[in-house]
Amino acid sequence: MSSTPADLAVIGGGQLARMMQQAAIGLGVRIRLLAEGPDVSAAQVIPDHIVGDHTNLDDLRAVVAGVPVVTFDHEHVPPEHLRTLEAEGHACRPGPDALIHAHDKGVMRTRLTQMAVPTPRWAFVESVSDLADFGLPAVVKTTVGGYDGKGVWVVSSPADADEAFASGRSLLAEELVDFRRELSALVARSPSGEVVAYPVVESRQADGVCAEVIAPAPDLDAALDAEGRAMAERIATELDVTGILAVELFETRDGRLLVNELAMRPHNTGHWSIDGARTSQFENHVRAVLDLPLGSTSPRSPWSVMVNILGGTVEDLEAQRAIVLAAEPIVKVHLYGKSVKAGRKVGHVTAYGDDLDDVLARARRAAALFTDGVTHD
Amino acid sequence: MSSTPADLAVIGGGQLARMMQQAAIGLGVRIRLLAEGPDVSAAQVIPDHIVGDHTNLDDLRAVVAGVPVVTFDHEHVPPEHLRTLEAEGHACRPGPDALIHAHDKGVMRTRLTQMAVPTPRWAFVESVSDLADFGLPAVVKTTVGGYDGKGVWVVSSPADADEAFASGRSLLAEELVDFRRELSALVARSPSGEVVAYPVVESRQADGVCAEVIAPAPDLDAALDAEGRAMAERIATELDVTGILAVELFETRDGRLLVNELAMRPHNTGHWSIDGARTSQFENHVRAVLDLPLGSTSPRSPWSVMVNILGGTVEDLEAQRAIVLAAEPIVKVHLYGKSVKAGRKVGHVTAYGDDLDDVLARARRAAALFTDGVTHD
Repeated sequence: MSSTPADLAVIGGGQLARMMQQAAIGLGVRIRLLAEGPDVSAAQVIPDHIVGDHTNLDDLRAVVAGVPVVTFDHEHVPPEHLRTLEAEGHACRPGPDALIHAHDKGVMRTRLTQMAVPTPRWAFVESVSDLADFGLPAVVKTTVGGYDGKGVWVVSSPADADEAFASGRSLLAEELVDFRRELSALVARSPSGEVVAYPVVESRQADGVCAEVIAPAPDLDAALDAEGRAMAERIATELDVTGILAVELFETRDGRLLVNELAMRPHNTGHWSIDGARTSQFENHVRAVLDLPLGSTSPRSPWSVMVNILGGTVEDLEAQRAIVLAAEPIVKVHLYGKSVKAGRKVGHVTAYGDDLDDVLARARRAAALFTDGVTHD
Repeated sequence: MSSTPADLAVIGGGQLARMMQQAAIGLGVRIRLLAEGPDVSAAQVIPDHIVGDHTNLDDLRAVVAGVPVVTFDHEHVPPEHLRTLEAEGHACRPGPDALIHAHDKGVMRTRLTQMAVPTPRWAFVESVSDLADFGLPAVVKTTVGGYDGKGVWVVSSPADADEAFASGRSLLAEELVDFRRELSALVARSPSGEVVAYPVVESRQADGVCAEVIAPAPDLDAALDAEGRAMAERIATELDVTGILAVELFETRDGRLLVNELAMRPHNTGHWSIDGARTSQFENHVRAVLDLPLGSTSPRSPWSVMVNILGGTVEDLEAQRAIVLAAEPIVKVHLYGKSVKAGRKVGHVTAYGDDLDDVLARARRAAALFTDGVTHD
């Protein structure tokens, strides 16, 4: 650990912290990291790191000692610890009063409904009887802890919810939205109140996990793009979010936007911005949490495409890298320094250009080469 | 130091190694660094570093232990040590037989003359009498160790060379070229022989130090651009350079290109490529030395401008950062984590766009704000 004071503490050593570091290097921002292990993704690239547990207050105190601002790679730090850190003089960005809306879907749904932000119809459900009252089919979700398809059940008949109710966790039901596609609206907001919005993008899922993102969302009505940006700006402001806020949206078949989820950190649907925008979401996150002026969110190309590299049959991504780079010289490769496990996000690729079909095909080929060693052409 | 093996050892902890790390993070390449001190520019961002002396063979051996490939932040490692490392199984890229041409201007001038590459008229000079035979005015240079205007004397009368001859160092004389401007041709070359060339850029000096770079060089004749690229490709190939080769050129008033200097590492005249090209010089350097396929060198905008931040009256660059970012939201900031000393390169800014006058003005304003806190408008 360096004796030079850090500017920013980051809790959690995943790929989001790793990509924050790429932006921080250019800005001359020094990060101190709380990492889950000595060689996790971000610990490989941030010298000033401590290995510890983000649920342990002593570990949190050790990493923030002497550091004025704290931000996060994930949303799993207990809110009471964030309040303690704030009481001890560290600015948590986002703070616990904002983060609870990303942590707890019940709180989020209640607040958005109060704000009259359009969401799927929803209700808390404690029993099969509640679920019957709500009406089927429905989506049942744990209010806390679900992500990437975990803690989510699509329920057509009461028996489909047995596992959900058996979990003993707080649940809510949501209407099964007949959506055309999923979109995402990203904004960055600073404590001073400056907000900048990225173009609304299309997010394509496979098995509940983000598979690819197209920026901007193809054929999106300009009014819906403006509505999505405005909605994200308003949520960020009213919830006092600092840093990146990602608002995951459904575009319904009848042309409405409904808020699905909120995330308060750089988000998979914003990774395209590293190569595709004037200022990446990671740079704007770092700038926002340090209350620095925010950068332009303008796209640099008509189209940018991001495709995730999910763990597949290829075990040695570094060996595969040469094959991908030879096959697709314009594709940008982002590896996370993680070992391959089935379905794990271990990297992503980006392509940009004037021809959407071409850049999408290139990015998909590169990702497939990393995943399975073949191009699926 | 990490127990995980590194892919690449980098000797020297300056800003070039720091910016190599930004590229290495995306590629999933692990760097081990030999740093001059515990908190030098690159040591701040590369966890796996050793503090040591690049002229000490034991320190070099310690940093390359278990690492297959070695590259460099500077050209000051003694050639005999590089030969020892090669004999011990480490690939030095570039190798000592190439590097000598960047290290020793006498060797470089001799070789380029043998290759019939156009250079300024030149000769070794050992005495005032030799210099009189060569003819005045002339530029006298030490063959080894000069850079950024150091070790260079413009000689109009024999007395102007007294300091040069008193230095006791090997000297050469070159004609004082009547140049229109200075250009730079950058290529990346891999051990497999793949070579890619960046567009030829214009480099503007102040007091012998690179002040700003415009990519591509404005109003450059297409034939001269092609000639510059081809010259750099040929030099890289014949000298067996691996990694980035920068060929600094004079464009004479009568429309010829003459080779001024060679550098075998990422170069100040290529910094624009981080924000301005599809693949930065740092990424292509890392890819080249690891013998990975090279990336597209295409510019992403009609114009990219890089302006150096040289140490001036502003002492706290980090405090100044907010002022710069607010004033110029499209400018990209690159700080090196260095303390400010008069004239020291402590960072650079880049701007890109369709209007050269506009992006040049913005980048200059941002750099002036960092240097002296005023915009010189």
